[in-house]
Amino acid sequence: MTQSTDSRFLSACHRQPVDATPVWFMRQAGRYMAEYRVIREKYSLLEICYHPELAAEVTLQPVHALGVDAAILFADILLPAIPLGLRLEFAKGEGPLIGKPVRTLADVNNLRPVDPETDLVYVLDAIRILRENLGGIPLIGFCGAPFTVASYIVEGGSSREFLKTKTMMYSDPQTWHALMDKLSGVLTDYLLAQIRAGAQAVQVFDSWVGALSPADYETFVLPYSQRLLKAAQAEGVPVIHFGTNTTTLLPLMKQAGGDVLGLDWRIPLDDGWKLVGHDVAIQGNLDPVTLFASLPEIKKRVTDILRRAEGRPGHIFNLGHGILQNTPVENVKAVVEMVHEYGVGK
Amino acid sequence: MTQSTDSRFLSACHRQPVDATPVWFMRQAGRYMAEYRVIREKYSLLEICYHPELAAEVTLQPVHALGVDAAILFADILLPAIPLGLRLEFAKGEGPLIGKPVRTLADVNNLRPVDPETDLVYVLDAIRILRENLGGIPLIGFCGAPFTVASYIVEGGSSREFLKTKTMMYSDPQTWHALMDKLSGVLTDYLLAQIRAGAQAVQVFDSWVGALSPADYETFVLPYSQRLLKAAQAEGVPVIHFGTNTTTLLPLMKQAGGDVLGLDWRIPLDDGWKLVGHDVAIQGNLDPVTLFASLPEIKKRVTDILRRAEGRPGHIFNLGHGILQNTPVENVKAVVEMVHEYGVGK
Repeated sequence: MTQSTDSRFLSACHRQPVDATPVWFMRQAGRYMAEYRVIREKYSLLEICYHPELAAEVTLQPVHALGVDAAILFADILLPAIPLGLRLEFAKGEGPLIGKPVRTLADVNNLRPVDPETDLVYVLDAIRILRENLGGIPLIGFCGAPFTVASYIVEGGSSREFLKTKTMMYSDPQTWHALMDKLSGVLTDYLLAQIRAGAQAVQVFDSWVGALSPADYETFVLPYSQRLLKAAQAEGVPVIHFGTNTTTLLPLMKQAGGDVLGLDWRIPLDDGWKLVGHDVAIQGNLDPVTLFASLPEIKKRVTDILRRAEGRPGHIFNLGHGILQNTPVENVKAVVEMVHEYGVGK
Repeated sequence: MTQSTDSRFLSACHRQPVDATPVWFMRQAGRYMAEYRVIREKYSLLEICYHPELAAEVTLQPVHALGVDAAILFADILLPAIPLGLRLEFAKGEGPLIGKPVRTLADVNNLRPVDPETDLVYVLDAIRILRENLGGIPLIGFCGAPFTVASYIVEGGSSREFLKTKTMMYSDPQTWHALMDKLSGVLTDYLLAQIRAGAQAVQVFDSWVGALSPADYETFVLPYSQRLLKAAQAEGVPVIHFGTNTTTLLPLMKQAGGDVLGLDWRIPLDDGWKLVGHDVAIQGNLDPVTLFASLPEIKKRVTDILRRAEGRPGHIFNLGHGILQNTPVENVKAVVEMVHEYGVGK
């Protein structure tokens, strides 16, 4: 199969000129879509992940319904926790829960080795199915960054303060480094397996890393994110490095790696791009709550972002974080059209 | 009673030289202290607030136990919601809940007028009691900033995404502006009443404003925060303007007002001070989770902050956010000593 390197999305990742700004949405397959809810009535989130045909079907839904420029594999960043030997479940309305969180060096040493080609083969199979069905639309693979995955498996689920995660860093750095070493190895193998299975770009989600100071990021996170990001970049596919609340971390995140840096709405897109440097592409940065507003208000905000990126190849339009659960699907579709139409006929 | 304008804390607020860096902690009276838990076994949080002698007692506990350089009135930023006609309760472990949140212009118009001298007199009485008992230790009064108070009364409690708050801004700006106009008036009256009752400094908590983009802050928040902050500054007491996640908002927050700007740990103190300008004092910025670490690790991090502030009057040592619930009290006490001893005998 040949790679559609002439796509808008991949061209923008490489900072090459495009006919229109490419657009996709984090969490573009999800509960806000009626087609997805039909599947979710019959299967749990994990069941969808475990069945490659279902994961592929759900991945394709927004591609067909919205006209986005890229598909992102339907999966969860915590899937690697399962072969690591941790119990993962999704409690209703509560997000992921990890049974028996990792707290000690013994816990880290008890984590099992992971072979993505067998332990996570269902993800790779979904990628293979998708590549046969996506035509010219590029497929984005992804994984969680070591810090964000570590935060879930140390806290036991979502967190606001990251008390246990940071306490491990500050009070038991040996355990922290052992955990990050193990996770970055597992996540690197997993991401490379996705690329080899056919993912044409990958995104590394460090969604919660903005809870850290720059000094802590540099000491406790950067080397492990770098290992993962550089290994993926060495495979020759574009790598998107994403986080939220990252204004003060962006220069270090760039140093860690990525061809594309994700920005959230807290920093104006042009300021953020300037901060990381124009030698990387940029992805973002509409506030997901904007999608609940009226179309004229949405258009004003979409246009503002596009204007800030204008005149320089390398912008991929996206939200600053994932689509929220009750987002009106017609507004998402309208944003795709606004982005594609911007500048046409100017 | 004469104001102890020669105190370390007040001098630092005015960017005057001090014999040692002053230190206090947000939420320094709270569950992490055994003395406080004794009171809380008998009284609810609101009962403590309603009884000026109890509020004063709890306010004094950390002053006696820790040796901090300022007392902060024990109260809750949502107390003004009660005379506004909203039902406020604190569900166990869940934070504040507002019965019948404010969602429409009719809801805003139904908010009752508030006279702090009668409706919130218990707060003012606590201030009067405290001024008689604090000796030379200055007393900080406080209120929530209009945005942060609005976010609770629109969402109905704490929030992660601020979906309903932002949706009101984006989709129903008339209602938003009416709400902010009303809240900034009520909060201004309340804060001025605290100053007139004896508060020698005040802090305005815009704890959650970091959820906004700079453009939204400027349009939807700044004018209302400015009204409150400038009115308090006109009373001649130092005004501390605090938020978290505010790196990209800091220049606008400075424009809104305050003699002292609060920084969280996401920005190195010297970078943050440079960003807002050296014509204001600065407060911060230790990560509250640091207090769970070993004393050598704590000292390393405390020293780093003090070093970044060195050679320029106008630094008040504090956390980047409130003390967390299970913080070891002996570590808090040790930080006070570290801050006071720093530089002595150098």
